[in-house]
Amino acid sequence: MVSETARSTAPLNAPRQALAERVLAVRTRSRALTMPLSAEDMGVQTMEDVSPAKWHLAHTSWFWERFVLLPHLDGYREFDPRFNYLFNSYYEAVGSRQPRARRGEISRPGLDHILAYRAHVDGGLEQLFALSGARWPQALDALLPIGIAHEEQHQELILTDIKHVLSVNPFAECYGEAAVPARGPEPVREWISFEGGQDMFGHEGGGFAFDNEGPRHRAWLEPFAIASRPVTNGEYAAFIADGGYRTASLWLSDGWARIGEEAREHPFYWRGGPGEWREYTLHGEREIDADAPVSHLDYFEASAFAEWTGFRLPEEREWELAARANDPAGGRWADPDGFLHPVPGDGDGFFGGVWEWTRSAYGAYPGYRAGKGAIGEYNGKFMCGQFVLKGGSALTPPDHVRASYRNFFPPQAQWQMTGLRLARDS
Amino acid sequence: MVSETARSTAPLNAPRQALAERVLAVRTRSRALTMPLSAEDMGVQTMEDVSPAKWHLAHTSWFWERFVLLPHLDGYREFDPRFNYLFNSYYEAVGSRQPRARRGEISRPGLDHILAYRAHVDGGLEQLFALSGARWPQALDALLPIGIAHEEQHQELILTDIKHVLSVNPFAECYGEAAVPARGPEPVREWISFEGGQDMFGHEGGGFAFDNEGPRHRAWLEPFAIASRPVTNGEYAAFIADGGYRTASLWLSDGWARIGEEAREHPFYWRGGPGEWREYTLHGEREIDADAPVSHLDYFEASAFAEWTGFRLPEEREWELAARANDPAGGRWADPDGFLHPVPGDGDGFFGGVWEWTRSAYGAYPGYRAGKGAIGEYNGKFMCGQFVLKGGSALTPPDHVRASYRNFFPPQAQWQMTGLRLARDS
Amino acid sequence: MVSETARSTAPLNAPRQALAERVLAVRTRSRALTMPLSAEDMGVQTMEDVSPAKWHLAHTSWFWERFVLLPHLDGYREFDPRFNYLFNSYYEAVGSRQPRARRGEISRPGLDHILAYRAHVDGGLEQLFALSGARWPQALDALLPIGIAHEEQHQELILTDIKHVLSVNPFAECYGEAAVPARGPEPVREWISFEGGQDMFGHEGGGFAFDNEGPRHRAWLEPFAIASRPVTNGEYAAFIADGGYRTASLWLSDGWARIGEEAREHPFYWRGGPGEWREYTLHGEREIDADAPVSHLDYFEASAFAEWTGFRLPEEREWELAARANDPAGGRWADPDGFLHPVPGDGDGFFGGVWEWTRSAYGAYPGYRAGKGAIGEYNGKFMCGQFVLKGGSALTPPDHVRASYRNFFPPQAQWQMTGLRLARDS
Amino acid sequence: MVSETARSTAPLNAPRQALAERVLAVRTRSRALTMPLSAEDMGVQTMEDVSPAKWHLAHTSWFWERFVLLPHLDGYREFDPRFNYLFNSYYEAVGSRQPRARRGEISRPGLDHILAYRAHVDGGLEQLFALSGARWPQALDALLPIGIAHEEQHQELILTDIKHVLSVNPFAECYGEAAVPARGPEPVREWISFEGGQDMFGHEGGGFAFDNEGPRHRAWLEPFAIASRPVTNGEYAAFIADGGYRTASLWLSDGWARIGEEAREHPFYWRGGPGEWREYTLHGEREIDADAPVSHLDYFEASAFAEWTGFRLPEEREWELAARANDPAGGRWADPDGFLHPVPGDGDGFFGGVWEWTRSAYGAYPGYRAGKGAIGEYNGKFMCGQFVLKGGSALTPPDHVRASYRNFFPPQAQWQMTGLRLARDS
Repeated sequence: MVSETARSTAPLNAPRQALAERVLAVRTRSRALTMPLSAEDMGVQTMEDVSPAKWHLAHTSWFWERFVLLPHLDGYREFDPRFNYLFNSYYEAVGSRQPRARRGEISRPGLDHILAYRAHVDGGLEQLFALSGARWPQALDALLPIGIAHEEQHQELILTDIKHVLSVNPFAECYGEAAVPARGPEPVREWISFEGGQDMFGHEGGGFAFDNEGPRHRAWLEPFAIASRPVTNGEYAAFIADGGYRTASLWLSDGWARIGEEAREHPFYWRGGPGEWREYTLHGEREIDADAPVSHLDYFEASAFAEWTGFRLPEEREWELAARANDPAGGRWADPDGFLHPVPGDGDGFFGGVWEWTRSAYGAYPGYRAGKGAIGEYNGKFMCGQFVLKGGSALTPPDHVRASYRNFFPPQAQWQMTGLRLARDS
Repeated sequence: MVSETARSTAPLNAPRQALAERVLAVRTRSRALTMPLSAEDMGVQTMEDVSPAKWHLAHTSWFWERFVLLPHLDGYREFDPRFNYLFNSYYEAVGSRQPRARRGEISRPGLDHILAYRAHVDGGLEQLFALSGARWPQALDALLPIGIAHEEQHQELILTDIKHVLSVNPFAECYGEAAVPARGPEPVREWISFEGGQDMFGHEGGGFAFDNEGPRHRAWLEPFAIASRPVTNGEYAAFIADGGYRTASLWLSDGWARIGEEAREHPFYWRGGPGEWREYTLHGEREIDADAPVSHLDYFEASAFAEWTGFRLPEEREWELAARANDPAGGRWADPDGFLHPVPGDGDGFFGGVWEWTRSAYGAYPGYRAGKGAIGEYNGKFMCGQFVLKGGSALTPPDHVRASYRNFFPPQAQWQMTGLRLARDS
Repeated sequence: MVSETARSTAPLNAPRQALAERVLAVRTRSRALTMPLSAEDMGVQTMEDVSPAKWHLAHTSWFWERFVLLPHLDGYREFDPRFNYLFNSYYEAVGSRQPRARRGEISRPGLDHILAYRAHVDGGLEQLFALSGARWPQALDALLPIGIAHEEQHQELILTDIKHVLSVNPFAECYGEAAVPARGPEPVREWISFEGGQDMFGHEGGGFAFDNEGPRHRAWLEPFAIASRPVTNGEYAAFIADGGYRTASLWLSDGWARIGEEAREHPFYWRGGPGEWREYTLHGEREIDADAPVSHLDYFEASAFAEWTGFRLPEEREWELAARANDPAGGRWADPDGFLHPVPGDGDGFFGGVWEWTRSAYGAYPGYRAGKGAIGEYNGKFMCGQFVLKGGSALTPPDHVRASYRNFFPPQAQWQMTGLRLARDS
Repeated sequence: MVSETARSTAPLNAPRQALAERVLAVRTRSRALTMPLSAEDMGVQTMEDVSPAKWHLAHTSWFWERFVLLPHLDGYREFDPRFNYLFNSYYEAVGSRQPRARRGEISRPGLDHILAYRAHVDGGLEQLFALSGARWPQALDALLPIGIAHEEQHQELILTDIKHVLSVNPFAECYGEAAVPARGPEPVREWISFEGGQDMFGHEGGGFAFDNEGPRHRAWLEPFAIASRPVTNGEYAAFIADGGYRTASLWLSDGWARIGEEAREHPFYWRGGPGEWREYTLHGEREIDADAPVSHLDYFEASAFAEWTGFRLPEEREWELAARANDPAGGRWADPDGFLHPVPGDGDGFFGGVWEWTRSAYGAYPGYRAGKGAIGEYNGKFMCGQFVLKGGSALTPPDHVRASYRNFFPPQAQWQMTGLRLARDS
């Protein structure tokens, strides 16, 4: 245990103090996001990709406990060693774990127990932060931003996953009510042109980034142009109306097979039919807004749409180059009390509309090596079979987006808030 | 609505009054059985055969509402018409319904809402029973016993299903604590002999029976003998120790394939290994009691065990004939505060040990015709691919067992409390 | 080796001589049945139930080698010990074997090699039969009829299976040409009534029977009537036209689920649609004959059709009792040069129309015990999940049918030439 | 029909004459490759990726007929229009087709029929080539090389696929006998270093290339080194011995899941165990040669092995740059009479050892657009979920390899002759 004396000697310096405060704020926000949900809502798993909200609350706590408190807070008491089995997501280095597809079978520990776990971990974090500046473990400077980013990712997943859980309910259940933001003028699609050439890519340093955003490296781009805004629901409805889902030549081979097997004819959460498309949102089923970014497309749909237009998906470095001039803060970031769905104008400044599929397969940047140990499993071991997405959506936490950020999902993922932006060769 | 005047004119006659009281008692008991469970426990579905406890509470209420209150209580207000979709089990005549494998995905309505549903239905039943004797719908005399029997079946399922739900929890969760009953002397297996010949079978009338227990009919039996008690854990452990699970010649072809695919080497809830067998019970994991009836065998295991002994499973009519002399009330029936697992001596009197597999495929008795309409779907449409079980288990409700009762499950069912009793040709 | 001297001493007695001749005739006929097929046709397996014709030719040879020649012909040289792995069907006592679903993957040994195997085995059989009467192994008297019956079953399977193989070919391939037999008058359906009562069932002795046809035993039947002929294509088309495939109340629960999953709307080999039904036969696709027995129904279809008529399927003992008065020789038995499909009038005398589903689950007769060793696996280990069929079809070998014969298939089997005959309680 | 007069006027010019001769030679070679096989061998499909050899012979003929003869040979008579259904591989623009997984079910047309089809198409090609130089359709200059390359790809597949077909045979069947080439000294692994920088990649023009090898484009490479030879069996056996298959941290997440499900512990065709590894080859099962390139690894195995060494897989452009200095003709190319398996020294010159996995996902080069129509489906629609492989194997046709060639397979593909070469950052 940390003694009173030790804790009282010296306050943290200002940047560390700010970091500590961000940690506690992100912890508070996770719980806040689940307040509209019952314990029963929070236990359900409706597909393998989806985790129960309760599991997210527990897993994020486990992450802090396992990687921050146990190694760095002397005397910290592990809440329950069995949670290493239940709430480890995929860290092979930590040991075996509850099978992913069976997270919804675990009714015990119940929500109350998990909230107690959160409180225990929060108490540990507060103790840790109370350490005098001199005794502050240096490793925290790197670890805490990872923990924040990790929990923010799970905040986005809480919303993404509960959306699916509520959507399969035969009755029109929703996460909550929210006013639709006032809309601006219809966004016009313009082409932003770039001359190409040699440039530097990846995270520049200064602020947190995941390891997969680096190393910063040189690459050559051919001249290209990129659209000033994401593709809209109205444009996507026109693709459907033009027989997009029945035209094999527009589709990647795997995509054509998939939509055939599923007899798929529209995006994941769309309902109704031509002329009366509606979509399921966290605020219930609503008429689609023709000017809002289309969302919940898989890679195959994004690719087929781009093919239909005669243009293409951007490369990840094209997107990064184009987005650099914009301010990520310009997005309408996920506000638990706000409207949790894209509206017209979202994504005009590249950030905060939808996660935009690029045609770049997710792989290692030149010189990239995954770290050692469990934390090294965060990104590198997924570099196969996935595509990079850029931008961030209406569900993405505020300080979690930047031009170098590389989100990644397999091409068939639909339950994420995913769309696209067109590009073309110049 | 039923007017006060109408209700006050005349009390029900005594048998109807007793029937009405049994209805209300069975309703109360269902809820009582779930009291040890949290709302989260009650929402989980761990295999397709298992339904969430919450669903059982709602479905049994729906059954009363749909088949008793709506047709027979003037002015009854349906609680929520959408429940016809959610809580219909398999009545094609009523309409489409939530897919069985997806009952665990429905977090809303929550438990509180479903308890309100139960209260609403119970209120309706009370109103119905308050009807003067003269205005009592005659149909109730036949319908109420079906409703009671139906809800009792689901009481057994609540326990059976929650046992599976808790058993998959990686931690040793249990339904509750209970004292193990004092045990008598070790039960000796004796052969009870019958001369065979022509006899009558099926329900004799007098008291409720399901339609599949009749018509009463004549059949011829060859001489046979049947064991005085079910097979015990100790006997079954000897079968395992003798290589029972590795000896193809003992098994039905489908059974041998199945245990091969699953690499199965012991009964469903057994854990540990030879010499240290333990089993999961509603009261947690316990050492097996060598003298207690073995349970949670599938038909293939029961059949292979019988083959190993050189004897065989009984025919359903052999079992019925032998059991007639015994009093069903002699069983140790499911007491929610009692010990919910077989103990030595259970089943000695044929009833209340385990559900005992017979080698009779479940089919129609001569002259049987399924009823018309939804209620006619209760039994007849399942007469394919299942076997008859007799006897009743430690989870079976008190007045739900009799010599003519025909339980039925597919041969691969393991999650029920199923065992066997040996028979032989004389 | 058997010496010339030994062989010349004494001829076989007449019954043994006749038996030996039947063995050689059945061997010849198997090969004759495959003459219209190429080696390539004979290697294909199109579903797990189907075996390549080449495999049937080899397996039947292996059966003689393994159960007759090796034990009883001194000096017999096994053709290739590896064939025990390849051509064992399901005899666990003999050892491991090629997985059933992968019989079509074995291109080597090729057809020529397998024909050499047949010749080798035939040579062995001839040697065996040349043994003087005195040295004839007594066991052959029981074994040879089993071998004949076994090979005859596979003859039926050769035709049944190649029908499926050719049917999946996108082009209209057929087994061969054949003239349609001249048709008699339209068969009228009459009810043949029986008073019921106590009677004896099962094989009477006198001639070969499988073990599952006995023991002969007493049983009680209630009064019933049975139709004088099988259900026809025309009657079945009326069931379809009346919405039979869309009426849940007619179907067993498992059947309703199955036709829903498959979106099934007609019998297995029917094509076209209402008013223009055609069916695939071994002689190619043909217009259905409204007066011919309907074939290739599964149990669920047979049961639903019976329910639609208000009648029912017969019990196996009802069928046996009714058929006894008829002469099995009256059927139009499978003639490789004949018309291999039911025509009007087939089955009028109970035998030789289609295999007729009964509602009796396939189980053991009272007192039945499976034999020891591999031959004991022939029937007993399949007594689970199947139904008894009676009668025999246009593909069934001539001397392979009798009133006591019990064919059995799982309820979902469609690739067999299966139909039904109606019955009713009197 | 082409008249004699027309054909006699003028010979083809030399390059066109050479091209025509190459077409006919490649046609001859395809058939030659199947000479060791029976018609039965050539009909079997043992996994979805595998096609029957017979199908390859037919499909390649169909390709010439559909894309060369029908459009360009006036009066050409299509052999059988139904073959468009049977022998179309994946050209959506041409129409529907036999499902890929069911190619092995088609016994008719038989091999003889397909050889007649080949002869018919060859006759058409000869007629086409007999056209006077003046009437030669210009489009052929581009189409014929595609047809040659296409048929060569299928030649490699014939060998690859029949290897699998024969390997599943429980007896040690092989494609043929062949002498093992004399081996040189043990190949030493040296690092070949490159300074990186800006360079041009993709096909330079001059000779045939697939569309996916272009456009030629600029890219920037960081300094790197690449191994002088592929990884050997001996090195891979050391990885196994060191617990490579049991060390999660070496594996991509999908790979770790896959080897876990399959309980995989060695490469696809390896048999035996540590210290006595053997492998199945087209010449039967043989002891592994520790100095020969390891083959039949999937991407996950290649990646895990590289991780274990501390090095990595090369990028496709690194491999291309390094290979440029070498002569593809230096490889030991697939000789149907030669040894169809890698031997020590194969691949030292980059070409002709094994197909070497790179860590580059298969995607479009800058400026790439798939062609219009069916031929445009050749490459572009597969740009998802696959990785680029370079080099060519012992089964690859002689003139089918070059530094710019991009083979591609999904990461789980094992039935191809695939291995790896190490690279590292400098």
